Amino acid sequence: MAPLLGLCVFLFATTACLGREATFKKPPKLVESKYGSVWPVPQAIQISEVSFELHSSNFEITHSAKSSAGPRCFLLQEAFRRYFEYIFRLPNTREGYLKKPNSNAVVSQLQVLITSSDPECDGYPNFKSDESYTLVVDQPISLLTAANVWGALRGLETFSQLVYQDDNGMHQINKTNIKDFPRFQHRGILLDSSRHFLPLKVILANLDAMAMNKFNVFHWHIVDDQSFPYQSTAFPDLSDKGSYHPYTHVYTHMDVKIVIEYARLRGIRVIPEFDTPGHTQSWGFGQKDLLTTCYSGVAPSGTYGPVNPILNTTYDFMSVLFKEVSSVFPDAYVHLGGDEVDFTCWKSNPDIQTFMDEQGFGKDYSKLESFYIAKILDIVAQTGKGYMVWQEVFDNNVKLRPDAVVEVWMENKVEEELNKVTSAGFPTILSAPWYLDYISYGQDWQKYYRVEPLKFNGTDEQKKLVIGGEACLWGEYVDATNLMSRLWPRASAVAERLWSSEDVTNLNDAYSRLTVHRCRMVKRGVRAQPLFVGHCDYEYEGL
Amino acid sequence: MAPLLGLCVFLFATTACLGREATFKKPPKLVESKYGSVWPVPQAIQISEVSFELHSSNFEITHSAKSSAGPRCFLLQEAFRRYFEYIFRLPNTREGYLKKPNSNAVVSQLQVLITSSDPECDGYPNFKSDESYTLVVDQPISLLTAANVWGALRGLETFSQLVYQDDNGMHQINKTNIKDFPRFQHRGILLDSSRHFLPLKVILANLDAMAMNKFNVFHWHIVDDQSFPYQSTAFPDLSDKGSYHPYTHVYTHMDVKIVIEYARLRGIRVIPEFDTPGHTQSWGFGQKDLLTTCYSGVAPSGTYGPVNPILNTTYDFMSVLFKEVSSVFPDAYVHLGGDEVDFTCWKSNPDIQTFMDEQGFGKDYSKLESFYIAKILDIVAQTGKGYMVWQEVFDNNVKLRPDAVVEVWMENKVEEELNKVTSAGFPTILSAPWYLDYISYGQDWQKYYRVEPLKFNGTDEQKKLVIGGEACLWGEYVDATNLMSRLWPRASAVAERLWSSEDVTNLNDAYSRLTVHRCRMVKRGVRAQPLFVGHCDYEYEGL
Repeated sequence: MAPLLGLCVFLFATTACLGREATFKKPPKLVESKYGSVWPVPQAIQISEVSFELHSSNFEITHSAKSSAGPRCFLLQEAFRRYFEYIFRLPNTREGYLKKPNSNAVVSQLQVLITSSDPECDGYPNFKSDESYTLVVDQPISLLTAANVWGALRGLETFSQLVYQDDNGMHQINKTNIKDFPRFQHRGILLDSSRHFLPLKVILANLDAMAMNKFNVFHWHIVDDQSFPYQSTAFPDLSDKGSYHPYTHVYTHMDVKIVIEYARLRGIRVIPEFDTPGHTQSWGFGQKDLLTTCYSGVAPSGTYGPVNPILNTTYDFMSVLFKEVSSVFPDAYVHLGGDEVDFTCWKSNPDIQTFMDEQGFGKDYSKLESFYIAKILDIVAQTGKGYMVWQEVFDNNVKLRPDAVVEVWMENKVEEELNKVTSAGFPTILSAPWYLDYISYGQDWQKYYRVEPLKFNGTDEQKKLVIGGEACLWGEYVDATNLMSRLWPRASAVAERLWSSEDVTNLNDAYSRLTVHRCRMVKRGVRAQPLFVGHCDYEYEGL
Repeated sequence: MAPLLGLCVFLFATTACLGREATFKKPPKLVESKYGSVWPVPQAIQISEVSFELHSSNFEITHSAKSSAGPRCFLLQEAFRRYFEYIFRLPNTREGYLKKPNSNAVVSQLQVLITSSDPECDGYPNFKSDESYTLVVDQPISLLTAANVWGALRGLETFSQLVYQDDNGMHQINKTNIKDFPRFQHRGILLDSSRHFLPLKVILANLDAMAMNKFNVFHWHIVDDQSFPYQSTAFPDLSDKGSYHPYTHVYTHMDVKIVIEYARLRGIRVIPEFDTPGHTQSWGFGQKDLLTTCYSGVAPSGTYGPVNPILNTTYDFMSVLFKEVSSVFPDAYVHLGGDEVDFTCWKSNPDIQTFMDEQGFGKDYSKLESFYIAKILDIVAQTGKGYMVWQEVFDNNVKLRPDAVVEVWMENKVEEELNKVTSAGFPTILSAPWYLDYISYGQDWQKYYRVEPLKFNGTDEQKKLVIGGEACLWGEYVDATNLMSRLWPRASAVAERLWSSEDVTNLNDAYSRLTVHRCRMVKRGVRAQPLFVGHCDYEYEGL
């Protein structure tokens, strides 16, 4: 019943071609990694052979006496509780029995020391947040040191990943030294809540999984052609008429607040995307004259195209909308889209033709697109926000602010594009190789893992402008039923590429750790699918 | 952010290439099907425009006075309860308010009439079971008529699919006449519990989904190279040493009984597969000398190959095991595998070489394979069971009983193989085009739907021997986390192909119905993934 050779040529992962006969060890023999099962691998880590015990009755995560943060730091208090639960309180982490109580050395405290005068307990993570930390696992007291809460969160995740249970169920941790920081600042996941509405609890569950993988940006592609689930205070008709259902398939301001706070507590930024002028069909249902009327010959055809760029009312509307968006979403950046504008409808519309003539654009509709985008960028700049855009906006020579972030998504000529964008001096994030909605048979995580974001011709200065990347899960074929299992652990491959050192590239080592990491996610309630044959001690218990 | 053309050439479904721009209607405009949302389409159905109401307080499913089955028919009683719940009692089926009570005609009873003298309430479905039924939806009494319970189960599913809720939540059903029967007798799903252990509740959930799609065979590929989760009474070491874990990753006899009874109540046969002589690595851990010792030169290499076919102890073991299996599994058939035997190890073993010489097999190891299989077939025949085998057993000219079922799985030369097997007079089932573990981007359900099982050169007599097909979900990349969403609704395409008339091939009509059917499955708690962009009134509520 093996795959036929004919199929293999279409597959990326070579293991897929090896077929069913290739593995029959019991259990699949995993390479022992010198990194334990930590994912992503820290920048510097030494794990000793010496192990200590942890007992839930005699273990606490607590503020160091010297820390600038204390029990009033709600964010850390929540994190202490969360990680205590991950370690001891999950249904499947019940403790083993001690044969000889305290026969071995015991870690009874993890002290968290925040060194900066402002721990940022009540702040939001931002594009400059310091996520570095050091972790010294020793007995009886281990110490996690970070400049502020963002590094502490990353260190807590690492600490929790170092804990394992022996055959008797006893919690153990090895003497360990870690000095860690992310290689790239921007490590994002894009979810699309327009092609399918994503219930809040799926979004929150995904934020949990992101934290387990040290992702720090939730790029929320919140609206698109298919539906407009964002409930706007200024323009309630947008979701009333443009969502799949005005009550059950919308995000209220309260929903959005919950997502933002849940993300903040995990050190994750929420960057909303309001993509224009294309990808806006759903906007038209709730906002009259916003979209361009398409013509068939001399008469309107009854269909609509991209946002109408020649009306003042368009910009009045956008000013009010983006003012609201900029106050609802605290992050310093908004994503403005700007991709895939189809000119067919603009070309058919006589008013637009007249406008093109007046402006001297000739027949070059990309000039009209740039005209529109430039105005939108001005509008958003006035709200005090920075912006991200898809690469077409740069490609079309729209004048961008120097801090504008360009997202490279087109799969062809990625290296050339990275060179161009960075040589023009713009911060850049890479998503082209990480469109995780494209699925294929086999271990495609390896393909995502092999990507090297800085592999393009450019100076050191240019390379510094590549601030990170995003794994994108577009929503055409994804909703609450399959989002989590489709995204995880495939996105984990991207997580390690963006966090760990450039030389962390060993696929066998990665496979071993990721297999354990995936079972750990499953144990924590994340519906992460298997990498390949094998088992978890605790299989997923849901349906 | 659309897919690039370069990717499209690898994709099967054309819609995948149209990309994100292709659909932006709100909501996606579905073709109104003359079949309502019934899936699979009945052989003959007339749905009138006239609609009736159903009120949970005034509706019952009950035995017709003339029925040979009555309240003692536990199977039907359970089914009545189940379908009442599907219609009225799911969290999302709360009833609307009547403005004018009983203003419209009301269906207050669905009477179920079993006409055969033996309703088979306590029996098991088998390869000859009659699943035909007629359904007359009228008011105040609707009538479902079937020879026995198996047809009644199919008719109850159909009835439940005819019920819909209007905008006020009121349950409605249209006046309808249906005469229905399956085109193919054997409509199976293969699950693989060896590459990954499948917790019992996933298997049961899948049986529920199968019933919603009128599948009637659960082909349980229960053991394989990777693990042996079947707990044998005669040979407990097989699972003690050959499973992933002897307590948490095994199927006890009680587990197996539960699966069989749950399936029986839904009219589903359970056919276990114990695949030999290949695919047996896990067997070797618990049964000494069962597998062939491989040699490296003149010394054993420490690895093992297929079952050792030259020892009497092998056949003694198999006799006892298959005797047990034949008593644990009530179905008249056992699947014996027989696929993909690798001769490398046999060739390396000097004892086997000697045996080959003695038998006059020369260097033709397929003769040794046939020698082994023939003996196994005899063993199984002595238990009184029939058997199914993968196509290689036929291809290698092993002498088969006339009622042996040959399963065609190799993707190359399918039509030629179907012709060969049927011209040799053997009942045949087709699984080659329906390996659903192979995933690809887009609407691959269309590919499965387009298959015509009888499209091969052969006489009418030959075509009659094609008794059905199976959708196979091999387990290399599938476990409890992703099984349900990966299988459904893709397997639904296979369900309609195997049940409905040959001329039910309209993809647009199928898309419309399947979209609704998929949302219905979601509402019933089945994690069926979306076909494409859009929404369900009630999105999946789990995580």
